[in-house]
Amino acid sequence: MRDVAVIGVGINKWGELWEHSLRNIFVDAALKAIDDAGVDHVDSMYVGCMTSGLFVGQEHLSSLFTDYMGLNPIPATRVESACASGGVAFRSAIMEVASGMSDVVLAGGVEKMNDLDGGGVTFALATASDQEYEAYNGITFPGLYALMARAHMEKYGTTREQLAHVAVKNHANGVLNPDAQFPMKITVDTVLNSVEVADPLRLMDCSPVTDGAAALIVCPLDMASKFSKATPVRVAASTMGTDTIALHSRSDLTFLNSTATAAEKAYAMAGVGPRDIDVTEVHDCFTIAEICVTEALGYFEKGQGGAAAEAGATARDGEFPVNPSGGLKSKGHPVGATGVAQVVEIVKQLRGDAGERQIKGVKRGLTQNMGGTGGSSVVHILEAV
Amino acid sequence: MRDVAVIGVGINKWGELWEHSLRNIFVDAALKAIDDAGVDHVDSMYVGCMTSGLFVGQEHLSSLFTDYMGLNPIPATRVESACASGGVAFRSAIMEVASGMSDVVLAGGVEKMNDLDGGGVTFALATASDQEYEAYNGITFPGLYALMARAHMEKYGTTREQLAHVAVKNHANGVLNPDAQFPMKITVDTVLNSVEVADPLRLMDCSPVTDGAAALIVCPLDMASKFSKATPVRVAASTMGTDTIALHSRSDLTFLNSTATAAEKAYAMAGVGPRDIDVTEVHDCFTIAEICVTEALGYFEKGQGGAAAEAGATARDGEFPVNPSGGLKSKGHPVGATGVAQVVEIVKQLRGDAGERQIKGVKRGLTQNMGGTGGSSVVHILEAV
Repeated sequence: MRDVAVIGVGINKWGELWEHSLRNIFVDAALKAIDDAGVDHVDSMYVGCMTSGLFVGQEHLSSLFTDYMGLNPIPATRVESACASGGVAFRSAIMEVASGMSDVVLAGGVEKMNDLDGGGVTFALATASDQEYEAYNGITFPGLYALMARAHMEKYGTTREQLAHVAVKNHANGVLNPDAQFPMKITVDTVLNSVEVADPLRLMDCSPVTDGAAALIVCPLDMASKFSKATPVRVAASTMGTDTIALHSRSDLTFLNSTATAAEKAYAMAGVGPRDIDVTEVHDCFTIAEICVTEALGYFEKGQGGAAAEAGATARDGEFPVNPSGGLKSKGHPVGATGVAQVVEIVKQLRGDAGERQIKGVKRGLTQNMGGTGGSSVVHILEAV
Repeated sequence: MRDVAVIGVGINKWGELWEHSLRNIFVDAALKAIDDAGVDHVDSMYVGCMTSGLFVGQEHLSSLFTDYMGLNPIPATRVESACASGGVAFRSAIMEVASGMSDVVLAGGVEKMNDLDGGGVTFALATASDQEYEAYNGITFPGLYALMARAHMEKYGTTREQLAHVAVKNHANGVLNPDAQFPMKITVDTVLNSVEVADPLRLMDCSPVTDGAAALIVCPLDMASKFSKATPVRVAASTMGTDTIALHSRSDLTFLNSTATAAEKAYAMAGVGPRDIDVTEVHDCFTIAEICVTEALGYFEKGQGGAAAEAGATARDGEFPVNPSGGLKSKGHPVGATGVAQVVEIVKQLRGDAGERQIKGVKRGLTQNMGGTGGSSVVHILEAV
């Protein structure tokens, strides 16, 4: 297996993109990644997208995007693992390059969510849960994550304010990200006074509905300098784990087994431990998610993720800077694009290209992208060369 | 890259499976493949499915199926390329084994289509076309393939009766397949007298709406004998091509560029030509499709596919036996499962396990699976060891 590098990144301003269609949004990000990489061809493409069939009545993205990028007849594959689709696209591209089958592979992610009304979006997202046992009985994702939050509060004494601190920190980071959907500063009171969605979660605990795309170009590490003038970033680990799709099937609602499994394998693959990670992007679809994820990654003891967030351990100047991009909460969460955008942020941080939100002296970063309530998780570790 | 073998196949009786859910259908076929292969573990899984979100409100099949097979926390990926999703799942599994990343990988395909009414099914399938330029303006797949048929008739003199011969031959084969949805003998008159769907195509030119699944186990060729008592079947080539998603963007409506590209690469990879293929499964979603595909594969000159079908060249005792399983027309077409089921049939033929429909002396087989009107195509060549 060959060493793989990321040599190009592309992302667009996320939000409610009423004047753009699914194909425009994707092609825009993909062309930026191609320009950034300086490649003159693409051998193959992976697209992460959760449910464009439900959101905009369009599947068959392999053909649509190669067509609209002028890349026919190259092979292209759309991959889906709910909100972890983007991470899976990146992982698939890495595998294709590592295997020697292709040299220059594009991994992109996209979702256009705002074309549906609120009920439509809620139904589309609920297809990531167990349709027959969860969605059919009326529970949707805010409710599922509310159960996880309540269980965490009961078991470990996590407080309502600690949840709020995750949102406050991520919005503070998002203010420094020109591509973020909601780059506004908020306080703990903003969260506590926002409308209740599913007790104990309030509106400002939830990531928004977003249109957006992101893209990456990967190639063998030993070819990176042939194409790109930018510092190549090496892929040190790429792993995936799964768990039961239904939350009620788990022995512990507060622990993300799929993330813990993927992280354990990733640390082994990269030959590092949690303390060697300088910067991290995680899947904060709800504030409680970031708390559970930082525990599953081994950054904090089980039950200590809330206290750590409150103490500033995950702030940009903390021990474990988490979501310098603003995370899903502030940057936005076009579900299929999120896993790819996390890698875009880590690559920018490792290159020293993260502008005002740059964290100093970072050499190694980690991304964690997850589907459903953690039914699937993808973890990557990236290193500056 | 390591040589890869198929060591297990599983399929269930296809049709209107009202008493079974998406998960049951998939797990049944997957467990049969695992039993057939004799493996005691699975390292990773790929699932081809076109649009379970629209058909049954369920995405996130990676988590659902690993969960219901007791395989958590192994990695799993759902792939989609419209009706070529199954072929892409097989190709992804091959790549993962060839790369050395995993040893035992399951590639499955599934679709549960009958839960929607006719209009719902038509909408769901139309997401494989260009939503903004084709589907939105009211043309659906029977209409698109009717345009291809009319163009073929105008350009080459292909007759209405020649189209019918494809259906007659595939139903004659399907009679010998106990898993086929419509195993009944028909005549040219049956086709010509069936209800008109989109001129010149009639009901009996069209593949049906089907619930079903199929699964394969792949491993490195040099490990095949460790697991399976059955004759291993070697993967000699695995390729994919894409074309414009919209039919109107092509310079020639009658020629399938994506299939021709994939076939050309596949022949080069396997070191063979069309005349070296003993048995073939192709994507006969409509009768005209089989005619265009046999031309794109190089079995017949451009424009001669219809005459060849009429002359019996694609019958089980013809020069190029095509769709001994009954094809999509008689066996059924659960869209995400089709590409996998094609490989199941070729493996059975190469093992000599195809029962009454066994073609004698076959050493090498080819599968061609396609999305939309050929916006994507996947080709595999398999060889008896």
